[in-house]
Amino acid sequence: MRKKDSIVFHRPPSVLAWAAVGGKKEAEGPLGNQLDAATEDNTLGETSWETAESDLQRRAVQLVLQKAATGLAGVDLIFAGDLQAQCTASAYTMRALDVPFAGLYGACSTMAESLGMAACFCAAGMAGKAMALTSSHFCTAERQFRTPLNYGGKRTPTAQWTATAAGCCLLGAAGNGPRVNAVTFGRVRDYQVNDINNMGAAMAPAAAQTLLNHMQAVGTTPAQYDSIYTGDLGQVGSALLCEILEREGMPLPNHRDCGLMLYDRQSQQVKAGGSGCGCSAAVLCAHILPGLAAGREKRVLFAATGALMSQTLFLQGESIPGIAHCVELASPESL
Amino acid sequence: MRKKDSIVFHRPPSVLAWAAVGGKKEAEGPLGNQLDAATEDNTLGETSWETAESDLQRRAVQLVLQKAATGLAGVDLIFAGDLQAQCTASAYTMRALDVPFAGLYGACSTMAESLGMAACFCAAGMAGKAMALTSSHFCTAERQFRTPLNYGGKRTPTAQWTATAAGCCLLGAAGNGPRVNAVTFGRVRDYQVNDINNMGAAMAPAAAQTLLNHMQAVGTTPAQYDSIYTGDLGQVGSALLCEILEREGMPLPNHRDCGLMLYDRQSQQVKAGGSGCGCSAAVLCAHILPGLAAGREKRVLFAATGALMSQTLFLQGESIPGIAHCVELASPESL
Repeated sequence: MRKKDSIVFHRPPSVLAWAAVGGKKEAEGPLGNQLDAATEDNTLGETSWETAESDLQRRAVQLVLQKAATGLAGVDLIFAGDLQAQCTASAYTMRALDVPFAGLYGACSTMAESLGMAACFCAAGMAGKAMALTSSHFCTAERQFRTPLNYGGKRTPTAQWTATAAGCCLLGAAGNGPRVNAVTFGRVRDYQVNDINNMGAAMAPAAAQTLLNHMQAVGTTPAQYDSIYTGDLGQVGSALLCEILEREGMPLPNHRDCGLMLYDRQSQQVKAGGSGCGCSAAVLCAHILPGLAAGREKRVLFAATGALMSQTLFLQGESIPGIAHCVELASPESL
Repeated sequence: MRKKDSIVFHRPPSVLAWAAVGGKKEAEGPLGNQLDAATEDNTLGETSWETAESDLQRRAVQLVLQKAATGLAGVDLIFAGDLQAQCTASAYTMRALDVPFAGLYGACSTMAESLGMAACFCAAGMAGKAMALTSSHFCTAERQFRTPLNYGGKRTPTAQWTATAAGCCLLGAAGNGPRVNAVTFGRVRDYQVNDINNMGAAMAPAAAQTLLNHMQAVGTTPAQYDSIYTGDLGQVGSALLCEILEREGMPLPNHRDCGLMLYDRQSQQVKAGGSGCGCSAAVLCAHILPGLAAGREKRVLFAATGALMSQTLFLQGESIPGIAHCVELASPESL
């Protein structure tokens, strides 16, 4: 089952149901009509953005339970995390959900980390059904990582726009949904990038390493995948990733970055692209999983990337470590 | 393998090696001479407390590798987390360690969460060897959760003292060390405590729930354990826990709290006791695991507790959700 850096499932677990919830800007983007729900008001009627983000998560969970026609009692374990300090979006979501909860932190890689964990637990019979959940919110992220919105800080061309979105998946050992073939948990890479407005560059080396490690362990080449999705490298990080992998003799003609899919970069003014846990989560649940379920794609990689810094460490002049976790997904009939 | 809220291992994985590293105050406490290493200077020669905390983790990892006479190449996956915003103590530790890394956030419950995860992955063959790692640092935690030390804030009688400490365990599917019999990932409980200086009270209901769920799933009573360790409820939370469980008809005569073991509460002026991820981690690695290895105890529960708030949510007037994860440990010869 363990092959080098990867966990390869003899009996691939199945993604039974999924849902993507977005904010106003996300609904106006290219994937807007593929979202399961969108909110017109990014406060969701709450008094703080932080609790609004928990609401996004809760809506995603509810939609998944509806789609799967099951209740929370059928869920053995939820893996969740987010960008707020001390992962409070997830923790406060869990107050309303009486389910065992394992908190994760992988920054914007959290959707792949949680999906991978849920797949591992289901495949091993350690959970009958498990959920993977994450979110981000533009306004909570600005407060966490840069300056509160009220300060009106200028955005640089390499900056990315944190998605206001949540994604949730329900997994089981067997089912008719897309399969999880294999999971690779990533290694931290730090190439001494210390520009908090250029996280794509900070994460690209980790994405390259994880993709190389995954394909080496599983024994595949890029051509064997319909798409290789990363998230969220944006324009700058994507170019770097392709450059690195070309130098390694492994060009990626079928590469797509979630940060470049959720928004129209020009008309929506998101600078280098989208980011945030919710960005790759929304693209996974609004585009990738539906495409696999419908057979439009047969086999893909979903390598979500995370920049593991904080405002504290950034202000102390530290560079930004990156990580990428990779989940290999396949259409139901590909078995 | 799955029994209600618990994961029960048919072939219990083994804790192969462990290490506890502490600061000056921890070295002066009752468990001081059981620590594997202690630092005289809590900056560890670094320019910030945050990077000093990463040093603590790195020392714990090095000691474990030395004890196990193995290198990092023999470790398939590290589960780690800490209290810093965006878990930077762990992420920055990983820059120096070229090993697949899954970041966790469970606040002060992280030692049990990471130990439980590592046990699950080893038991299922998804990792040959896996590490569980966490830390806390008094000075970084004060900056995160209360006010920076320089402000000289007063401490209330219910406040707990965040340990400057790290703990690390190496697990494998088989070995001669203490066994992990079962793991229960906890459910979030929020009893509307919103005093950031009384986290014991906020966490006690979650600890009670997890202990009840664990013993119900595994089919045991408190009398079957030599000790039931919680961490870190302190004086206030421990009294509450015992009160709740007595009312549930399950008194805990053999209860011990890590927050009351690491320091001498009176002479060391830690108010209600110790806390922080590093507190229960240090007690686990300096006292609990050595006791099981030496046969002084045969079977124990290790239920680490976490308060899942942040300064942001606290300042917004939110109450504090609690969680507890429970790991059942047994001496090597108890099989």
